[in-house]
Amino acid sequence: MEQPIRVTFLGPIASFSHQAAVETFGSSADLLPCVSFADAFAAVQEEKADYAIIPCENSTNGSVVQTLDLLADPNGLYGNVKVCGEHYLTIHHCLLTRKGDFLPDQEDYKSISRLYTHPQAWGQCDVFLEKNLKGVERQDVSSTSKGAEIVSKERSERTAAIASRFAAEHHGLEILAENIEDNANNTTRFLVLVNAQADRPATVDFNHIKASVTPGGTAQKKTLISFMVPQDRAGALADALLIFKTHGMNLTSINSRPSQVKAWKYMFLVEGHLTPTSLNADAVSGILHGLKQVTEYCRYLGTWTDQLVPSFEDEAVQYAYTHGDLILQ
Amino acid sequence: MEQPIRVTFLGPIASFSHQAAVETFGSSADLLPCVSFADAFAAVQEEKADYAIIPCENSTNGSVVQTLDLLADPNGLYGNVKVCGEHYLTIHHCLLTRKGDFLPDQEDYKSISRLYTHPQAWGQCDVFLEKNLKGVERQDVSSTSKGAEIVSKERSERTAAIASRFAAEHHGLEILAENIEDNANNTTRFLVLVNAQADRPATVDFNHIKASVTPGGTAQKKTLISFMVPQDRAGALADALLIFKTHGMNLTSINSRPSQVKAWKYMFLVEGHLTPTSLNADAVSGILHGLKQVTEYCRYLGTWTDQLVPSFEDEAVQYAYTHGDLILQ
Repeated sequence: MEQPIRVTFLGPIASFSHQAAVETFGSSADLLPCVSFADAFAAVQEEKADYAIIPCENSTNGSVVQTLDLLADPNGLYGNVKVCGEHYLTIHHCLLTRKGDFLPDQEDYKSISRLYTHPQAWGQCDVFLEKNLKGVERQDVSSTSKGAEIVSKERSERTAAIASRFAAEHHGLEILAENIEDNANNTTRFLVLVNAQADRPATVDFNHIKASVTPGGTAQKKTLISFMVPQDRAGALADALLIFKTHGMNLTSINSRPSQVKAWKYMFLVEGHLTPTSLNADAVSGILHGLKQVTEYCRYLGTWTDQLVPSFEDEAVQYAYTHGDLILQ
Repeated sequence: MEQPIRVTFLGPIASFSHQAAVETFGSSADLLPCVSFADAFAAVQEEKADYAIIPCENSTNGSVVQTLDLLADPNGLYGNVKVCGEHYLTIHHCLLTRKGDFLPDQEDYKSISRLYTHPQAWGQCDVFLEKNLKGVERQDVSSTSKGAEIVSKERSERTAAIASRFAAEHHGLEILAENIEDNANNTTRFLVLVNAQADRPATVDFNHIKASVTPGGTAQKKTLISFMVPQDRAGALADALLIFKTHGMNLTSINSRPSQVKAWKYMFLVEGHLTPTSLNADAVSGILHGLKQVTEYCRYLGTWTDQLVPSFEDEAVQYAYTHGDLILQ
């Protein structure tokens, strides 16, 4: 019998990363919470997990720098870790209480004695809180799911948490109000990490990951490459970026992080788009060859299938998220 | 008699921004603390202050996203705000107590009952704390200078704060130990903001700012420009960046932030270097003209004199910070 796939996610249990792991890998996978971003990278590097899933970017707040710094990997700790997939998760918040504590009635909200959530979530639910729960005591906790856990263990007080439906189900809480966030399109992008030396990627078979490892697919691919350029050569960064264009790759994202090698020297993390064709099959290796001529350091960090498809309603901040099957048609 | 220059800085009193303001503008300026990054921008836009000084980047932690988001200015609130200078401040921490409470003796440290500082400073003083203050209760506060203030008002307990020499002087505290940070080169870059419509910049006369407004200087200049590119045109970002190179400007920094206009669409903030010569006098206007052809939006955010001069010891993470006079020679 085949071993279940081991996937580590950024904990605690019932976190948004946990939800992303279930949506990507299904619930038959062996899902293991880890306590930090670095632990997720180490688990993949040391083959304690087959995959890791961690947040890398939010549509409102931007990049998650902990993930960028680990991908930049200045000390070469995670040489075998590559990105092999991505998953988009829209962040919806709910007002959660213990079952039977409250009626789903706005009037009854007023007797809530204390609210728990992650500091960022207060700002994300401003309109709802201002209208319904003004003046209620607020307690910051380290994650929204931690707040749900605290409320689930409450014995005497009538407290509530702001957390996901997923956390409500996990901790057996009642959903008093759903989708209480101000911005219904606040979305987090997660990256799926794999060990390039392990044999997992070629044999697995599930939605998103299948798409990224199927050779010859025509879906749009994303590639991530990191590099450092000499500080004293004018135009070095522009030269490096031009190489992507020369090989037909459309730059979609550039992040710079302190190199940790020298102050004010940066590691650049560049992501590009390419629709594979017979003509550009060697584009990525061509880019890497070109970058070696103009950079001090460059590293390939993986290629995977783009899971983001812009909606046709170009005016609205609205996107449809694809499934592996759909994008492979 | 001329009015004193009004400079707002990111408070509280005795913060690193306050220190940067004193080092840049001198103590004769009218220095006004503000409570948020947005307040600093608003004060300049509304001419309630002549200048603002705010952190934009740290050599270890990278960009300060609050500053980037305000420079990106998606709602056009700060149309007159430009960058006119920069200041580098090396972050040194001290162990501070009330005068007379302790002897400057490591043995005596053990009777400290509680330590106060900003969460980030614990990690920056790890070696010293592990060696000298292991197990002492730690209390997070909103800034290192706030910790110094709390200790200065202490009446019964023998508490200590980790904060700057500047905060010690401001709050009348004793320095038990100086430069207790692990990394002696951890440096923050501050930007000086000015209202481009006000007449302050052309008439002021002090170190750094003088350098940036003197026409015809030969010091290396930095220019900041923001832009958005169409998402659906392949190579649009590379085309935009190539324009900087074409006009002889060396890209030194690229940051991308969510545009807030549409999910996964970015505002790029690009900084470039140029040593002014008679041949490239029109480089910046040439770049802006070129960008208008290939971007959806672009905005000039200022030109100022580079205050960072790399040391000749290229191996070491060590830099010499220049003074306005020096760089103008």
